[in-house]
Amino acid sequence: MRLRNVKNKEEILSSSKFLVKNPKDYCGRWKEYFGNNNPIYIEIGMGKGKFIRENALKYPNINFIGIEKYDSVVAKCLPKIDDSLSNLAIVRMDALEIDKVFAHEISRIYLNFSDPWPKKRHHLRRLSSKVFLEKYSSIFLGDYEILMRTDNEDLFCYSLMSFSEAGYVLKDLTFNLHNNTDDIITTEYEDRFSSRGMPIYAVRAIKCLKK
Amino acid sequence: MRLRNVKNKEEILSSSKFLVKNPKDYCGRWKEYFGNNNPIYIEIGMGKGKFIRENALKYPNINFIGIEKYDSVVAKCLPKIDDSLSNLAIVRMDALEIDKVFAHEISRIYLNFSDPWPKKRHHLRRLSSKVFLEKYSSIFLGDYEILMRTDNEDLFCYSLMSFSEAGYVLKDLTFNLHNNTDDIITTEYEDRFSSRGMPIYAVRAIKCLKK
Repeated sequence: MRLRNVKNKEEILSSSKFLVKNPKDYCGRWKEYFGNNNPIYIEIGMGKGKFIRENALKYPNINFIGIEKYDSVVAKCLPKIDDSLSNLAIVRMDALEIDKVFAHEISRIYLNFSDPWPKKRHHLRRLSSKVFLEKYSSIFLGDYEILMRTDNEDLFCYSLMSFSEAGYVLKDLTFNLHNNTDDIITTEYEDRFSSRGMPIYAVRAIKCLKK
Repeated sequence: MRLRNVKNKEEILSSSKFLVKNPKDYCGRWKEYFGNNNPIYIEIGMGKGKFIRENALKYPNINFIGIEKYDSVVAKCLPKIDDSLSNLAIVRMDALEIDKVFAHEISRIYLNFSDPWPKKRHHLRRLSSKVFLEKYSSIFLGDYEILMRTDNEDLFCYSLMSFSEAGYVLKDLTFNLHNNTDDIITTEYEDRFSSRGMPIYAVRAIKCLKK
């Protein structure tokens, strides 16, 4: 994502009630943060946050946490959040720290249009690499799943192999998400991309405790 | 595949040394048929057999068995086989009978451009459906794998999900086989198809006894 500076960035960040300033303090205790036992879904790399904001509005009985690395991107998301929401939190962090922020409490991870890291020597930086799948395994609770969307063929092939290597079962696999499904919540990037008629790859990779 | 009648079909079938007339007699004993302990690879739905014939010529230390349902297609394949080959057998049978013809002796199955059976009510007829994966599990020996190629997106998605559901790990996944790999042995169908620049999907689905 192209980063532009945002006016009043520091003020936006410091005054928002949705931005969690000390996320590691809630590690293993996020249900206390939300004050209920609803399932917790996270989006890693939420960008400007359209996807997670709209999900939080549509599904009040799910708790959503949007994760993003860059201050200026977080600052663009925060003012757009519906002030009445009580099931959405935003965390500014590097995904490599994810296993220090969550512990056995997440039911679903969304990976939407993640950085494809095209060079082979960077592949372990991909959010679907075995490096990250190992980290995720310590944050998940019960049956769990990773929902991925991307327009990048190489990243998608890599991810399907990586998921299967780690014992995930592939469901709802499609090479053209918008051809098969109406009424789906999209990201900002996805809207621009699919409006040009380009296909979106998608998959739901699940792990069930009981077969 | 469009079926045309073949002149002298019965004569070709009855006189060929490559066509195994009584394949069930060799169930569990195919290494006796070949007279050695080399690995056995089978192609289910070999069509006119270019792929399996060329493989047999290129890899003399592998035993290959081409399987095809239709008499007239088998009759087109048989005269094209290099007479000197001792590592190729042809079996005329319905794939549903595969577990009556082989038992714990196959290392690899090729599924090349299998019938996509597009209607949902016919999906269990697909050679990558759970019906067939269960049958295959009784014919495999040691570590084993299924190598699939297809131009059919829907069949490919279905197959990846079916393989992962059955515990296979996906390797060498590509949405454009001929873009990534030179010097591969192709089928007749594939040559026509990829010469028009259309992509071929491919995957190697493996099961290893030791992880």
